[in-house]
Amino acid sequence: MTQKEGNALFPTLAILGGTGKEGSALALRWAKAGYPVILGSRSAERAAQTAAELNVQLGQGNLRGLDNEAAAREGNIIVLTVPPEAQISTLSSVKSALAGKILVDATARVDAKDPRPPEGKAAARAAQDLLGPEVRVVAAFQNVPAHALKNLARELDSDVLVCGDDPEARAEVVKLAEAAGMQAYEAGGLDNALIVEGLTALIISINKRYKSKTGGIRISGVEKTGK
Amino acid sequence: MTQKEGNALFPTLAILGGTGKEGSALALRWAKAGYPVILGSRSAERAAQTAAELNVQLGQGNLRGLDNEAAAREGNIIVLTVPPEAQISTLSSVKSALAGKILVDATARVDAKDPRPPEGKAAARAAQDLLGPEVRVVAAFQNVPAHALKNLARELDSDVLVCGDDPEARAEVVKLAEAAGMQAYEAGGLDNALIVEGLTALIISINKRYKSKTGGIRISGVEKTGK
Repeated sequence: MTQKEGNALFPTLAILGGTGKEGSALALRWAKAGYPVILGSRSAERAAQTAAELNVQLGQGNLRGLDNEAAAREGNIIVLTVPPEAQISTLSSVKSALAGKILVDATARVDAKDPRPPEGKAAARAAQDLLGPEVRVVAAFQNVPAHALKNLARELDSDVLVCGDDPEARAEVVKLAEAAGMQAYEAGGLDNALIVEGLTALIISINKRYKSKTGGIRISGVEKTGK
Repeated sequence: MTQKEGNALFPTLAILGGTGKEGSALALRWAKAGYPVILGSRSAERAAQTAAELNVQLGQGNLRGLDNEAAAREGNIIVLTVPPEAQISTLSSVKSALAGKILVDATARVDAKDPRPPEGKAAARAAQDLLGPEVRVVAAFQNVPAHALKNLARELDSDVLVCGDDPEARAEVVKLAEAAGMQAYEAGGLDNALIVEGLTALIISINKRYKSKTGGIRISGVEKTGK
């Protein structure tokens, strides 16, 4: 087994829904940056196959695949990239493996065919309510530019907005976004994730209007030197 | 009177709440671009005084001041930049002057001390519900970088997201944003303005975190050539 073990500098990342478009694009960038990455999927076999393909693409052995529950158990930081309708059921199925860990929730409840403001509480807030205070939930990557991330030669032109109630956990996730090649900003508490979900709807609306596929959001006018 | 009359190319803009920080900053940019601008205020005297000061600053005579109702009557396009708590009362008081016109609503219901996602329907949707189908409501300029706009030498580093149910009215407002020196994007229907209001909260959160005063949003990856 050539798989590295996670350590303080490079914790092991488990990506639930890691065989999907978003999850595998993030996995590729993180594995390239040196992180041990576990792809989680409902099917361990599919996860292992996707991991093997990405390892070949990278010429490395940083990725492996497991079923979602085993991935959540073995990962140090857990990233959720399943479709919105599978968010709560997936989290319920892995809940016991998440205690004490950071859960990065990328869920955005937006219908690409009818983009509009999401209702109720933020998806990541719902996750926190389900998981309780033992789990450090951070919302980020709701609008990952999967197409651009997959092209490792490409400069990324889209920022990551990181919302969460735990400042240390937010800072960890900013580091993950930077490792994936994106600029990232802490953008307030978990409830603000509702706005970031909405941004996904805005971007889809703008893409439709201008026949684009690559619309993104950037933050301007902020120096990231403050503490 | 040196004041130009509005025409098809340069309609007369009436800015309700035009003596405030946002309104006067926009007024300055539009007057400089050649638009006849009427500042509206609860006090006609204060409006006239601010208009005179801005005319001196510009070395032009494009601005004048009236009370809000007279401004709404004389303007071709009406821009609302009053504080959130005055939105509905101001609109109610000028309603009869708005029929057939475009109303640009810049209201964002965000508490700078406690920024969080706004609730309910978008402020501009509430305006449309109050005013009825006779008025073409467009939401824009909810997060005007007033400080930067006032400095005419300064390149603006913040985009305008324009939401509305009337495509022609949206396109008119994109032109206004461009005339004020900003890039602008049509971003869907009036309900999406709720997300843009939320963006104001996100930007305040980011400014607080990084001790910035100039945070803004830019759209990346979109060519504005589509129709």
